[in-house]
Amino acid sequence: MSGNIIGERFVTVTFGESHGSCVGAVIDGCPAGLQISEAEIQHDLDLRKPGQSIVTTQRKEEDRVEILSGVWRGFTTGAPIMMYIRNMDKDSRSYDLIMNTPRPGHADLVSRIKYGGFNDYRGGGRFSGRITASFVMAGAVAKKLLKYTLGIEIIAYSLEIGGIRAENFTLDEARNNRYNNETRAPLPSVAEEMKKKIIETRGKGDSLGGIVECHAINVPIGLGEPVFDSLDSDLAKIALAIPAAKGVEFGSGFEAARLRGTQNNDQYILDGENITTKTNNSGGILGGLSNGRPIVYRIVFKPASSIASKQSTVDLEKKKQVDIIVPGRHDPTVVPRAVPVVESTTALVLADHAIRAGFIPPVLKVKV
Amino acid sequence: MSGNIIGERFVTVTFGESHGSCVGAVIDGCPAGLQISEAEIQHDLDLRKPGQSIVTTQRKEEDRVEILSGVWRGFTTGAPIMMYIRNMDKDSRSYDLIMNTPRPGHADLVSRIKYGGFNDYRGGGRFSGRITASFVMAGAVAKKLLKYTLGIEIIAYSLEIGGIRAENFTLDEARNNRYNNETRAPLPSVAEEMKKKIIETRGKGDSLGGIVECHAINVPIGLGEPVFDSLDSDLAKIALAIPAAKGVEFGSGFEAARLRGTQNNDQYILDGENITTKTNNSGGILGGLSNGRPIVYRIVFKPASSIASKQSTVDLEKKKQVDIIVPGRHDPTVVPRAVPVVESTTALVLADHAIRAGFIPPVLKVKV
Amino acid sequence: MSGNIIGERFVTVTFGESHGSCVGAVIDGCPAGLQISEAEIQHDLDLRKPGQSIVTTQRKEEDRVEILSGVWRGFTTGAPIMMYIRNMDKDSRSYDLIMNTPRPGHADLVSRIKYGGFNDYRGGGRFSGRITASFVMAGAVAKKLLKYTLGIEIIAYSLEIGGIRAENFTLDEARNNRYNNETRAPLPSVAEEMKKKIIETRGKGDSLGGIVECHAINVPIGLGEPVFDSLDSDLAKIALAIPAAKGVEFGSGFEAARLRGTQNNDQYILDGENITTKTNNSGGILGGLSNGRPIVYRIVFKPASSIASKQSTVDLEKKKQVDIIVPGRHDPTVVPRAVPVVESTTALVLADHAIRAGFIPPVLKVKV
Amino acid sequence: MSGNIIGERFVTVTFGESHGSCVGAVIDGCPAGLQISEAEIQHDLDLRKPGQSIVTTQRKEEDRVEILSGVWRGFTTGAPIMMYIRNMDKDSRSYDLIMNTPRPGHADLVSRIKYGGFNDYRGGGRFSGRITASFVMAGAVAKKLLKYTLGIEIIAYSLEIGGIRAENFTLDEARNNRYNNETRAPLPSVAEEMKKKIIETRGKGDSLGGIVECHAINVPIGLGEPVFDSLDSDLAKIALAIPAAKGVEFGSGFEAARLRGTQNNDQYILDGENITTKTNNSGGILGGLSNGRPIVYRIVFKPASSIASKQSTVDLEKKKQVDIIVPGRHDPTVVPRAVPVVESTTALVLADHAIRAGFIPPVLKVKV
Repeated sequence: MSGNIIGERFVTVTFGESHGSCVGAVIDGCPAGLQISEAEIQHDLDLRKPGQSIVTTQRKEEDRVEILSGVWRGFTTGAPIMMYIRNMDKDSRSYDLIMNTPRPGHADLVSRIKYGGFNDYRGGGRFSGRITASFVMAGAVAKKLLKYTLGIEIIAYSLEIGGIRAENFTLDEARNNRYNNETRAPLPSVAEEMKKKIIETRGKGDSLGGIVECHAINVPIGLGEPVFDSLDSDLAKIALAIPAAKGVEFGSGFEAARLRGTQNNDQYILDGENITTKTNNSGGILGGLSNGRPIVYRIVFKPASSIASKQSTVDLEKKKQVDIIVPGRHDPTVVPRAVPVVESTTALVLADHAIRAGFIPPVLKVKV
Repeated sequence: MSGNIIGERFVTVTFGESHGSCVGAVIDGCPAGLQISEAEIQHDLDLRKPGQSIVTTQRKEEDRVEILSGVWRGFTTGAPIMMYIRNMDKDSRSYDLIMNTPRPGHADLVSRIKYGGFNDYRGGGRFSGRITASFVMAGAVAKKLLKYTLGIEIIAYSLEIGGIRAENFTLDEARNNRYNNETRAPLPSVAEEMKKKIIETRGKGDSLGGIVECHAINVPIGLGEPVFDSLDSDLAKIALAIPAAKGVEFGSGFEAARLRGTQNNDQYILDGENITTKTNNSGGILGGLSNGRPIVYRIVFKPASSIASKQSTVDLEKKKQVDIIVPGRHDPTVVPRAVPVVESTTALVLADHAIRAGFIPPVLKVKV
Repeated sequence: MSGNIIGERFVTVTFGESHGSCVGAVIDGCPAGLQISEAEIQHDLDLRKPGQSIVTTQRKEEDRVEILSGVWRGFTTGAPIMMYIRNMDKDSRSYDLIMNTPRPGHADLVSRIKYGGFNDYRGGGRFSGRITASFVMAGAVAKKLLKYTLGIEIIAYSLEIGGIRAENFTLDEARNNRYNNETRAPLPSVAEEMKKKIIETRGKGDSLGGIVECHAINVPIGLGEPVFDSLDSDLAKIALAIPAAKGVEFGSGFEAARLRGTQNNDQYILDGENITTKTNNSGGILGGLSNGRPIVYRIVFKPASSIASKQSTVDLEKKKQVDIIVPGRHDPTVVPRAVPVVESTTALVLADHAIRAGFIPPVLKVKV
Repeated sequence: MSGNIIGERFVTVTFGESHGSCVGAVIDGCPAGLQISEAEIQHDLDLRKPGQSIVTTQRKEEDRVEILSGVWRGFTTGAPIMMYIRNMDKDSRSYDLIMNTPRPGHADLVSRIKYGGFNDYRGGGRFSGRITASFVMAGAVAKKLLKYTLGIEIIAYSLEIGGIRAENFTLDEARNNRYNNETRAPLPSVAEEMKKKIIETRGKGDSLGGIVECHAINVPIGLGEPVFDSLDSDLAKIALAIPAAKGVEFGSGFEAARLRGTQNNDQYILDGENITTKTNNSGGILGGLSNGRPIVYRIVFKPASSIASKQSTVDLEKKKQVDIIVPGRHDPTVVPRAVPVVESTTALVLADHAIRAGFIPPVLKVKV
């Protein structure tokens, strides 16, 4: 495979560029008999749509999804599902101006070298955050599949933005609040703080990083294939495919470096008839397999690379160092828009592994 | 594929269990014409071998590697390379005693459920840290390939164990010191501290976590395939396949959550004729592609799960909560032995991507 | 992967159904810097387009291709290339009538069972010959790539239809004639005969089978990966993915069963400085590798399953045997329209293996 | 992947060379809980073992299989199964003599070019028929799995050798007779004729080709994934990975080129409650999916390339044409020894697809 395809049984193929005609996805391997509509996919796309609030880019895109194959009379058919959105509000003028002065923090220079200058560099092209719309389209189908077959629910939120970290909240609060505020925080009070910080930072021509935390609940025991296709391996792989992601940790994560075994081990206890654990430092994954506890993991996103401050770069034609102020319309932080993306990528991995482990059959029910 | 195979062009297949006959690997896709000997592979295996010092398990294994195919007259032939080590010093007695009382922090319970009780649970079976010997065997070939063709060097070390973190050292110091001390620290003084802490903790029947940091230098620009097979995606995937790994971060990593764009962006400068960057917060990877700067990343390892302290578990037959003290011979921390493993997994990913990106041809030179 | 994706490095993903919105393909892994236009792809699509002559189905489709990603300013960018054609002249009325009476020779019954009745059965849905338009779109890119980089030319033609077999023709004649007659025969005289036979058979409500022969010339030595990804293995795999194909043979093929080693072995001779062979019974492939001689192979196609004669089937609702006359517009033989398809599938395999074997680099040239 | 690995869910990895240390296989993805012993695998290996009769090579090999991982206490564990045989009776002396004079019909020259002269050419190395021992080892596990879970039986036999074709026999006769005669014919009388022909041809320093026919019965409806991973595609792919195979056909096969639709279509009829077909010209596969009728297909094998007659070749060092008489011990026809190999490769494909289609679960039963 060549990098734009992921999954073994629930396979996602992505295509499209930031300023090309479209961004889309093909799902190969979705079981037949799943009820799915464009409206459901649109719902998720709308959650990551640009231009929605003051904390995101001002690029305005309808991001209207069309399903062009694989769904018939409201149900998946077992054939590949092709979906896409057209790019409408493209403003590529500024990119030709800067093609010889690669933007710090972006893939401009490396992609130019890798592709011999043939890559579509407008808006970052294939390296733009806009391609995550593909993840969300495919992820919407995966989420529906997981919910319908196994009752799995996936909840992500902005745990931290610009040093402001949400604390003392419940999963119920996160579920209810995250999409009711612009920063995707689990608590309204935190959302307010984050928003203030974002606006203030944008005003200074700067940007912020942060952390998205994601829970997946009702995941059955035994998802994940040792050794290399462990569940955490595959979640990490796709997490780092999200532009600006720079790290991922499960359960106690980097904190575990400073814990002792007696502190970090999740001891088994009985909860009535059921075996469970006192703690969930493993983040729901042991030996690469889901252990029935909630899967909990975090992804760190670096501060958005496009900033309105003066930065040093090199003029590739003139071979001299120059200053640049990055033009275009940008997110002051990618974290809020990454939240629905992380839910989607999580769903893609879980759907794939649920099929691999035999929890979801190739046909969900028999119609005739 | 089914989980025990990784890579697209430099493909590594692993097999074996902790207390079975052997642990081994097959490499499919290694270019023909690479000079390689059992001695070179043995050298790397010896670095992770158990029973070497007071800071590791007391299980004694020769770990004597045999190459059984794919190498002829001292050179790789282009055919699959099969290598293995036999398991000698197995002591499986204790495992039958505990098969009904799953060890906290281990995969005992989840693997039993996933495989219907048919899995070889002795010593953790397929979930044991011992399987990383496969990574090292295959990695030794990958390291040689990268060194010979591109001059790539990979250097990992224990950055932190039990809260003791190495600071103020150079890469040269790390290169020279790491395998000259038992804890694989980059500085002798830190090694002493770490060793003391490990011995002290083991004495209390407890264990420690830590962080391995890894550098890869001389990596050409353009390794990595967007979107899903980005270089960081694939490094993270294999990192989390190492038992006890719970997180991974590149460059400024989780720290980036609290940085601003102006701080975190690596600005371009000219170094004579060459374009380079002032800082390396990206860890040598931009847009999923190597950017020519050193690749720098860190993996966190949880404290070793096997501890000599009393822990709570559930007796699966009697369906009641019981206390357990885990028997067997174990590492008080996995970090020192993980160091050569991380170098190996890094090499496996870089070799695969170097072939994919066209930097290494299918035949290294022509003999006749 | 899930069946609709093929290739390792030049990867083709297909989607679409006969009576859905569209039929299309995504290519992942096409090198950057290949000049390609919609017109070139259209040229190939036009060769397999329905409704062109009396010997094919009367369904009229423009089959107008659109490239929606991966090509920019006339060159491939290295990003996935998405292409599709819209379905226009759909007449699905008859299919609901027959959904309970599966058509002999078609996949109606097996696909209904496999997909629990959720498959789009109109016009055969995903099992229709119409999906080969995807192969042709992707194949057009592969052909251009092979021609541009290695000078490879691929020539297929109708070797035999309804017992009429072309004989005593040269490859030059085949190259010049095949697309200048409706039956895609290598000689005009044979074309006339075949056409007569087709018209006569269609008049009787019946259909014909036949054989497509394909040559690939200028293929370098060493394409193909032993053992399982041998060049003949991969050509055979994709050949049998073409609807109605029932067999494939290379070089002397089934004839070899009755030859002796002294007759079938291709003895080596010198042709000036070059080593070549007296004969080409191997069809240009030895040990699964291209040997520099023309690749020659044949694919047999069964007589088209849709015929206007009365056939026996079973009414699935009433559970009784009934007679059926298959409605719809159909090809009296699939052979002529299979000819450009076979050239395309051959190109897909060769392009993939040329990249795998290092004959085509990831970037064809450097623009900037 | 790199050519030595096949399958998606039941994955077979092969390694080894004709005159190296060993030949072996790793199976990744075999469900846990399958009872399997070395004796069962040995049984199948013995059927293809060399040196057994006057109609095969006189190389004597014990081919004693060892299972080194993945099977514990008599059952598969879900971990990779590694198996191998050691090469004992190697006589490599003759190969150095002929390394500069490539044998007609063999891969000597192409493999030397492909691997820059580094390939192990002794006995054909990786291109030897001996590597099919790997197929048989893995196939024995697949056969057991298919038999145990679905009652699938696979029966191959020599349909034709040197122009002598078996006719008028039943599948029962084939089942009972094939392994009770040296030529693997379905009838003793045909076996006698074939044997006479083989001995006579060998006496003349020549060799024979032939055809293996294979049936698979009790295959459930719906195995195979459209489009590219159709069941016939995957059976053909692996068939052509068997050395000396030059073609494959399903059901009426190449015969279908001369049939009309009314003759070749398998009309549906009721057999009591069950839907079946009057004929089985499809060979049990429609639209790439098994249709519940026996799978029937044929593979043609060219006459063995190693013959004791004088042949023309080129001395690569002296760059001149020379005559050669191929030394070594060889099969006068590969057909008899290919019979168990074809059963094995068929089983590998069916096992993989049965898992993919959900007919075989990841765990066969629960032990604890």
